[in-house]
Amino acid sequence: MRGLVFDRGAAKLVDDLSPPEASERETRVEVIAAGVCATDLALRRGYMGFAGVPGHEFVGRAIDGPLAGKRVVGEINAGCGECPSCIDDRSRHCATRTVLGILGRPGAFAEQLSLPTRNLLEVPDHVSDDAAVFVEPLAAAFQIREQIALEPHMRALVIGDGRLGLLCAMVLELYGVEITLAGRHPEHKEWLPGSIEHVTGWFEGDDSPPPETFDLVVEATGKAALLERAIPFVRPRGLLVLKTTVEERAPLDLSLAVVNEINIVGSRCGPFDVALAALAEGRVPVEKMISGRYPLDRAIEALDAAGSSGTLKVIVDIERSA
Amino acid sequence: MRGLVFDRGAAKLVDDLSPPEASERETRVEVIAAGVCATDLALRRGYMGFAGVPGHEFVGRAIDGPLAGKRVVGEINAGCGECPSCIDDRSRHCATRTVLGILGRPGAFAEQLSLPTRNLLEVPDHVSDDAAVFVEPLAAAFQIREQIALEPHMRALVIGDGRLGLLCAMVLELYGVEITLAGRHPEHKEWLPGSIEHVTGWFEGDDSPPPETFDLVVEATGKAALLERAIPFVRPRGLLVLKTTVEERAPLDLSLAVVNEINIVGSRCGPFDVALAALAEGRVPVEKMISGRYPLDRAIEALDAAGSSGTLKVIVDIERSA
Repeated sequence: MRGLVFDRGAAKLVDDLSPPEASERETRVEVIAAGVCATDLALRRGYMGFAGVPGHEFVGRAIDGPLAGKRVVGEINAGCGECPSCIDDRSRHCATRTVLGILGRPGAFAEQLSLPTRNLLEVPDHVSDDAAVFVEPLAAAFQIREQIALEPHMRALVIGDGRLGLLCAMVLELYGVEITLAGRHPEHKEWLPGSIEHVTGWFEGDDSPPPETFDLVVEATGKAALLERAIPFVRPRGLLVLKTTVEERAPLDLSLAVVNEINIVGSRCGPFDVALAALAEGRVPVEKMISGRYPLDRAIEALDAAGSSGTLKVIVDIERSA
Repeated sequence: MRGLVFDRGAAKLVDDLSPPEASERETRVEVIAAGVCATDLALRRGYMGFAGVPGHEFVGRAIDGPLAGKRVVGEINAGCGECPSCIDDRSRHCATRTVLGILGRPGAFAEQLSLPTRNLLEVPDHVSDDAAVFVEPLAAAFQIREQIALEPHMRALVIGDGRLGLLCAMVLELYGVEITLAGRHPEHKEWLPGSIEHVTGWFEGDDSPPPETFDLVVEATGKAALLERAIPFVRPRGLLVLKTTVEERAPLDLSLAVVNEINIVGSRCGPFDVALAALAEGRVPVEKMISGRYPLDRAIEALDAAGSSGTLKVIVDIERSA
């Protein structure tokens, strides 16, 4: 079958991939479309020593299993199902997990993929393919609510108006949080809900003292060094959520986080069911974030486009380009 | 009056300090004894651009106010009493606070000091002067319990077997937490409760994978760079408490904290009443940690002694050396 393959810095399209094999615990899926994520760009550069088929944001059609013929999305972490983490419903933290297109499991930039059957969720008819591709990153944004008690009128700053920052801001807005979104792309303001204040320039140039402090700051810039600059924006005993997973050593002074007793919360993947329900109810206008689409045989162009400043979600159409 | 003065790198003894003035809201205190803390050593090197009389661990005798004649200890953060933080009982985070011997308020290495009357607590007769000097650092150790729900059989790793690490381990042990204390001083093992496992060598030399992971890790080494090495010792979704306040920029990669969704909790000063009650009940054998004592006119020697490896608490006797 056709697919995109990364091998430590190189990206190439191949047509001789072996399709996934049938398995009792897994369901094979024909991929309809897949989204490009910043993690894919990092994997291309060699993050996690990755080699194989990338891609973890997808919508597809189940080939076999109980959902055969249905449109599906899927939780990307596949735990062993037997360890204490898995039994305790924390299979996303199973020490021997595989992760679709990231760790030990071929991903979604190919004609077919396979996931444990229990990882799949059926997509309601009125959720479009394009919207369904956003379930995975939207779930990551909803994960903030799983980890933190959000309260109406809580004041939050989201740093980064790229793909993930925008989703985080839109999700927090659903819970009545008062949001300031600090970024570099004034052009994104037009389609954000009017209740989200969009500012630019706060993190450009030299450090300057924060104009105000916030109960909650979400760092979603993809830049490890931003963490230190985010800390002064958190009120004493406030919360700082880290969404940036870039493996990068940055010079950081965290002493102010200790003096102000800030709570820094690492936050990764989130609940697919919650994200899919929000899409089904039309609560997050994700399709407005699509800024490019490519067929599978132009997937490398899709990656390049996703890596250019200001580009939001790039979709790779797979079924439709067969 | 006599006292020790720091001035950006220099330390000197003087005998012409002005004693604190009488004030309606404050109580003047004759200092009986004061303890040397790592923060004092950092202030001597210029931390926070400090200039003035250092010292924030003390026991004294109230000169005036409602506790006149009584032995007292005192919360070192003096909030304005009127801002939202102060009203919300978070005066330790008042933006305009002064801090005894640290920020805008002369400290305890002098014959007299002054604190807001509401900051003072009377010391019960059966708590010795030596033990009372430990109230401030012991309160900082108890602060962990204020921020985190400790549960019996929770497994904790305390990194650092210096003054603060030992106090943190002894406090956690009171709550039934199973503790491993990783340090560099095997000689401290003998007087630790037998239920605390004391290990050495874990953080020497190269990074090596952790032999095990813990629900809770407390970083109390005073070394900013240790944070990154502490992260792999925290189980996924576990807790990492930072007690190190050293203002130092260290190269850190926190991506594993995001992937494992670790909660990093900055932790500073703590509840004096809780610490004083623990001393009154003889629950923490703090006096065993005293490894040197000096009269005020040898306070500079006391600082040098406190800065040498393996030294625990150094006391400066002030009243008794008058």
